[in-house]
Parts: sequence; structure tokens; C-alpha cells
Amino acid sequence: MSDNAIGIFDSGLGGLTAVKELVKVLPHENIVYFGDTARVPYGNRSKRTIIRYAEQDASFLLSKGVKMIIAACGTVSSVATGLCDTLPVPFTGVVNPTAAAAVRATKNGIIGVIGTSATVNSESYKKAILAQDERLSVYQQKCPLFVSLVENGFLSEEDPIVQLVVERYLRQLKEKKIDTLILGCTHFPIIAQAIQNYLGDNVTLIDSGRETALYAADVLTQKKLLNKNDSHGNCTYYVSDTVDDFKRTAQIFLGQAVIDDVYHITL
Amino acid sequence: MSDNAIGIFDSGLGGLTAVKELVKVLPHENIVYFGDTARVPYGNRSKRTIIRYAEQDASFLLSKGVKMIIAACGTVSSVATGLCDTLPVPFTGVVNPTAAAAVRATKNGIIGVIGTSATVNSESYKKAILAQDERLSVYQQKCPLFVSLVENGFLSEEDPIVQLVVERYLRQLKEKKIDTLILGCTHFPIIAQAIQNYLGDNVTLIDSGRETALYAADVLTQKKLLNKNDSHGNCTYYVSDTVDDFKRTAQIFLGQAVIDDVYHITL
Repeated sequence: MSDNAIGIFDSGLGGLTAVKELVKVLPHENIVYFGDTARVPYGNRSKRTIIRYAEQDASFLLSKGVKMIIAACGTVSSVATGLCDTLPVPFTGVVNPTAAAAVRATKNGIIGVIGTSATVNSESYKKAILAQDERLSVYQQKCPLFVSLVENGFLSEEDPIVQLVVERYLRQLKEKKIDTLILGCTHFPIIAQAIQNYLGDNVTLIDSGRETALYAADVLTQKKLLNKNDSHGNCTYYVSDTVDDFKRTAQIFLGQAVIDDVYHITL
Repeated sequence: MSDNAIGIFDSGLGGLTAVKELVKVLPHENIVYFGDTARVPYGNRSKRTIIRYAEQDASFLLSKGVKMIIAACGTVSSVATGLCDTLPVPFTGVVNPTAAAAVRATKNGIIGVIGTSATVNSESYKKAILAQDERLSVYQQKCPLFVSLVENGFLSEEDPIVQLVVERYLRQLKEKKIDTLILGCTHFPIIAQAIQNYLGDNVTLIDSGRETALYAADVLTQKKLLNKNDSHGNCTYYVSDTVDDFKRTAQIFLGQAVIDDVYHITL
């Protein structure tokens, strides 16, 4: 069982930023990634639709014999909160580990949260933070255009378009004097430097992929499910739309070339 | 038969810009609109996926007894070109009527085409233009971020973000001295003024929704299928995701408030 893979899914390829962190934290683990590229993005869809999609995504990963499932999708983690009760393996979304990290990081008690419309409307991060400490102040901001910027190659911190959109979305959070900002969408780490430049170095950015990888390592350690094999783990990728552009796009999110196997499946 | 509705579908709500033009050109016609909002956008998907979705969309409209079907989606019109051969009613996409209008409009013989990645990769507009006159020069440009700008409310010609993205995408077309530009995506008429401002008044913008509505009027006239009823036609809207935000978003594309019926369906 312990050399079974960790399953991780996302509405598209953004979840690969979480894979990147998972490989850093748990280099010996095998990973099965599913990106639902035929139905991306989930962010603007109804709650009912998002839950149905998430259940199908998790079922696919279970069919690959995974020992744990991670929803690397901010939208799914915020909306399909009942998923953990129905799965036969440990499960985590990105919200709880990330919220806990933000609570640890803040000094002035003022935390910002940015995400897709669905994530922000769900108030999932805000609720998770206030459940830990109700004295904290939490301000949210929808940043849907960030996703499109990243997916269409508007990535550089020096690009005036990126700078203007960052300023437009984050001006109010800056005025609220946040000292901690949750990047509540897997795409956002890609433009983290532009965000950091605008907010200044005194603001701590919390990467949901990084925090969730650390949490998954804790869970697997506690349950004695870590891979005992000392060799480097394998990654296998599945997508629901064409694999043609996968390697090119995946490289943006993984930060390195994909040398592993990529397969197309139909859900 | 003649008072049956015209069916019109799109991957999302962008096709409502074509509905707006259809109502202007054919005010007495009943219209059934289907927006596949649960699966939007089609623009980045594989050819096989786009064809499957288009067939499902057309089947749904046929189940409503429509007398003609319009694919108001630039992506579908460019990729699912075999659809017209399989339908029992007249069909048109947006490509052929729009390409014909561009050929009529150009004076210097240099035409630009902008659209989603799938539309531009298909070269559908370019091929349709050159089939009419191979001496014309056609330059294409993918503008995927335009869709996201419109959907996320970045609409104003005075918004520096809109201006910068327009300049980034259209600089090369301007350098090529195009005198005619096809807006090859239903979303683009919404930011037409920003595009016109950048290119200057000597460039003629061709709106695919407008040209397709005029073509549909010709087809229905020839086939004696125009509605003989003199009252104002009704619009009925169907979407595959939640109807919650429909009226707010639809207003952007229709340019007026929606007073007609909206229903949710699952394909």
C-alpha cells in the first residue's frame, strides 16, 4: 500500500503548481495527477456542477489505486466540502492547510484572501481562518482575470498589463494593511513576484500548493503510509482533453520540462 | 413551420451578441438560444471535443422544433464544419457570412482576423476569404485574453488595461496596414470601440453576429420560412449551468435587460 501513488486533481493544469511543491516535500512518492482540461474552469460554475465534477475526478483517481487524494483546486476545496466524508482514503483540499498557515504567519492579524469567484463567494478561507481565531480580520478579493493572464502567457512581473491588473485587484487589500495574503488559486503562484512587488516585502504570501504538500506529508507520516522506497518517485499525468499542448502548458506550472507519461481519458 | 423559432447556440453567453443583431434584423422571429455555460469555453479544447459538443448543442435545439440553426460560436463554426451536412434544417455558422462581408468591405485588399486560439489555428476565416479572392492578403491574430476581459467586466474603452491588451494583440495587424478587421469571436463586439480607437477610423470592423443575422434573413426569405406573424418575436434562453447570474451577464452581451424566460438544462 505504501508505494501506491498520491492522487491529486484539479480542474485543469493549475494544480501542477501543487505537484511541484509535493515533489519537493515528498520526493520518493509516486504521483498520479488528473487535470479535467475538457471542463476547465470550474471557478464560474454552479455549486451542484462543481460537486458532481469533483466526485467524478476523485473516482477516477481511486480507480488508479491511490492511497490519498488531494484536491489541488481552490474551487473544489471551497465548494465540495463533503467529499472527504465519502472517500475510502485520506483526503485534503487546499483550504484548511492554507488557512492554518496564514493564521501562523500573520503578526498584525489582518489577512487577505484572493481566489476565483466561486472560492471567494464560498468564504471558505475566511471561515477556516475565523474558526481558528475569531479575532483576526479577513478581507477577500476575487481575481478571476489572474487565471486568464497566466493561461495566456501574461506572466512577467515587468509586464505593465500584469502590473495594472495586480494593482486593480489588490489596491483595496493593500489599503486594509494586510500583512499576509493567501494565494487561494493554483494559478496565482506563477505571478507571485508581481503580487509581492505591488504589496511590498512586508506582506507574506501563502502558497496553497506548498502548504497542502506539507500537510499531506504529515498525514502520510501519521498513518505510516509514506513510500519506503528510496528512489525518486514517478509522476503520471491524465487529462480529459487533448494531450497535444500538455507538455508546453505544464512547463509553465511545473517550472520544468515534463519527462513523464501523459494520457488522455474520457470521464 | 414558419412561426417555429430560429435556434442559435454558443459555448456560453457570447452568442447573445448575435441574438442582439438577429432581433434587429428579424424582429418578428421567435428565437431559442442555448448557451453551453457548463462547458464554456470551447476555444482551447480539442477538435474532437468541440465537434461532440456542437452536435449535442444542435440536437437540443432540434428538440425544440427550430426551423434553422445558427452556430454563433466562432470556434464551432471554424472547427465543426461538417455539422451542416447532418442537420434536417438550414444551418449556418458565422464564418462564411462574415468572410463574405470582409471581402466586400476591403479596399486595399489587406484583411485582419482576430479570434480564439481554436478559430485562428483552424484558419477558417482565412480559407473562406481566399476561396473568394486569392489575391487578398489575410493576417490572423489570436486574442484569447479579450474573452476574459469581457467576461470579467474589463469593458471600457478608457480602461488602460483594455487599451494595453488591445495594443499588445493588434500592433502587428496595424503594422500590416489592414483596412478591414473581422471580429471572429462573439465577445469582441463588446470591446469594439477600444479596438476601433487603436486601429483608427479608416479600418472597418466586421461583426460576425451582424453578418450572420443578415445571412440568416436571406436564407429564410429564399426558403419562404419567415414568420408571417407581425407581432414582436419571443426569445427563450436555455443554459447548461446555473441561471443565477444569467440576467446580469446576459445584459452585457445583449446591451439591454433580459425580460424573457431562462431555463436550466443538462445535456
